[in-house]
Amino acid sequence: MFKIPKHQVAGHQAIDGNLGPLVDDSGRFYKPLQDDERGTTELAFYRSFSSKLPHHIRGFFPVFYGTQLVEASDGSGLRPHLVLQDITSNHLNPSILDVKIGSRTWSPEASEDYIQKALEGDRLTTTVTLGFRISGLQIYESKESGYWKPARKEVKSFSADDVRLVLRKFVSSNLEPEPDCCFASTIYGGCSGILEQLLELKAWFEDQTVYHFHSCSLLLLIDKESVLNGRTVPFVEVKLIDFAHTVEAEGVIDHNFLGGLCSFIKFVSEVLTDSKVSTIQASFN
Amino acid sequence: MFKIPKHQVAGHQAIDGNLGPLVDDSGRFYKPLQDDERGTTELAFYRSFSSKLPHHIRGFFPVFYGTQLVEASDGSGLRPHLVLQDITSNHLNPSILDVKIGSRTWSPEASEDYIQKALEGDRLTTTVTLGFRISGLQIYESKESGYWKPARKEVKSFSADDVRLVLRKFVSSNLEPEPDCCFASTIYGGCSGILEQLLELKAWFEDQTVYHFHSCSLLLLIDKESVLNGRTVPFVEVKLIDFAHTVEAEGVIDHNFLGGLCSFIKFVSEVLTDSKVSTIQASFN
Repeated sequence: MFKIPKHQVAGHQAIDGNLGPLVDDSGRFYKPLQDDERGTTELAFYRSFSSKLPHHIRGFFPVFYGTQLVEASDGSGLRPHLVLQDITSNHLNPSILDVKIGSRTWSPEASEDYIQKALEGDRLTTTVTLGFRISGLQIYESKESGYWKPARKEVKSFSADDVRLVLRKFVSSNLEPEPDCCFASTIYGGCSGILEQLLELKAWFEDQTVYHFHSCSLLLLIDKESVLNGRTVPFVEVKLIDFAHTVEAEGVIDHNFLGGLCSFIKFVSEVLTDSKVSTIQASFN
Repeated sequence: MFKIPKHQVAGHQAIDGNLGPLVDDSGRFYKPLQDDERGTTELAFYRSFSSKLPHHIRGFFPVFYGTQLVEASDGSGLRPHLVLQDITSNHLNPSILDVKIGSRTWSPEASEDYIQKALEGDRLTTTVTLGFRISGLQIYESKESGYWKPARKEVKSFSADDVRLVLRKFVSSNLEPEPDCCFASTIYGGCSGILEQLLELKAWFEDQTVYHFHSCSLLLLIDKESVLNGRTVPFVEVKLIDFAHTVEAEGVIDHNFLGGLCSFIKFVSEVLTDSKVSTIQASFN
């Protein structure tokens, strides 16, 4: 009944007898609850968020179905898991970006050891310079070529220009030699596109003083085939995930997440603008 | 001709034979150029900023008149100084807030030593938690009581609640026991008030990829007497100062400054909202 998720791009994975999340056929995602404070924090978040967030923002979070004792993927026996919505279910070939938002992934209240380790990772990736980093990705190209899913090590070493290229490939029908960005206007643009959704999230972050989301990821899921198949509303999903370091905001906005989100929005909007310029130029040629 | 500034609230001060800025009677402010990279960086910034910034943003920066060899305040002889506009000139009793913006005051390119020292200061103050810290202030109360100008050590230890209280005192006719916030609507509110100016700056920061302003301060200057004297447009000035750690943005927005600015805006707008609520409540009693 439980299976290893096919479309996981970041985080611990339940392969080779390791502990990681599982999915079932009914569209649920089972995330092992961590033993330490991180597990407590994430569970507390999922238990309380829907009553604390405005209605129009709840859709940015996976549906939470409670906890369940599940046979752990590492064979260690029954273990409590968070039962969440499996966002990738019903999608044959989703392209996915996992973007860890914020120029700082540590909470000021974390232990000194944790802070030093997180800071080191933040400085080695684009986290400090760009205010976000890509933590994982898969981009579906075609039936023949399948997915582009660079190794974790490669993703970790992405530069600002690599990030720009990834954001172009994400909305292209080809990956080489030069991504055509032909889906940019439908996937990034449009009234229910990724940019609009990010701007809605930004407006909320300018005001919300409920949570500070440290080390939280923005998951972008798209289905390029849904565009090719001429669906009027393409499948585009923007979700926040990973709340093991989410703390109460104590009356202060999450300036760290907000700044990183604004930076990411700028990167996305540049792909959109450039693709419009290319379209206009092409129509003149 | 050169004098020690009367209204300096933060930074090196030219008292007791130390090296610090000087002013003259013609409204100019002479800032000693630092010997090291900081001096080079700040001079490069002042030499180039006016050609790189849009017209409506230039007013947020002090006017730059070039450099001049001036007898240094520490008696060490002639030394190059930046010649800037003295923002406090013509104001008898200005109230001033110096707010260092950003949850990080160090540039990723800084030396390891500098980063460790700056990070320590950021974690000991509200920089990391609020995304900004008050670096210095003076608040004019009255002819009898003069200024409230807490010692540097006290300012450094401000908590979030201390910051809230300072922002209330800044726009009050009294400081004790409970600041009345009677100038909030004219100084923070209104179409040329501080909040409007901060929002204009924010809109620019959401888009600008010219500079990253590390360890830069927002200077807020007001003259409460100008409100009492019934001037229709009260004296309210918002300036950015200190560019010794300003670097080129390389196509990325200054998410660190922007996040901190948004947090500061939220603090200011809360004082404004609370003061409106109090006014309405008072009118019902």
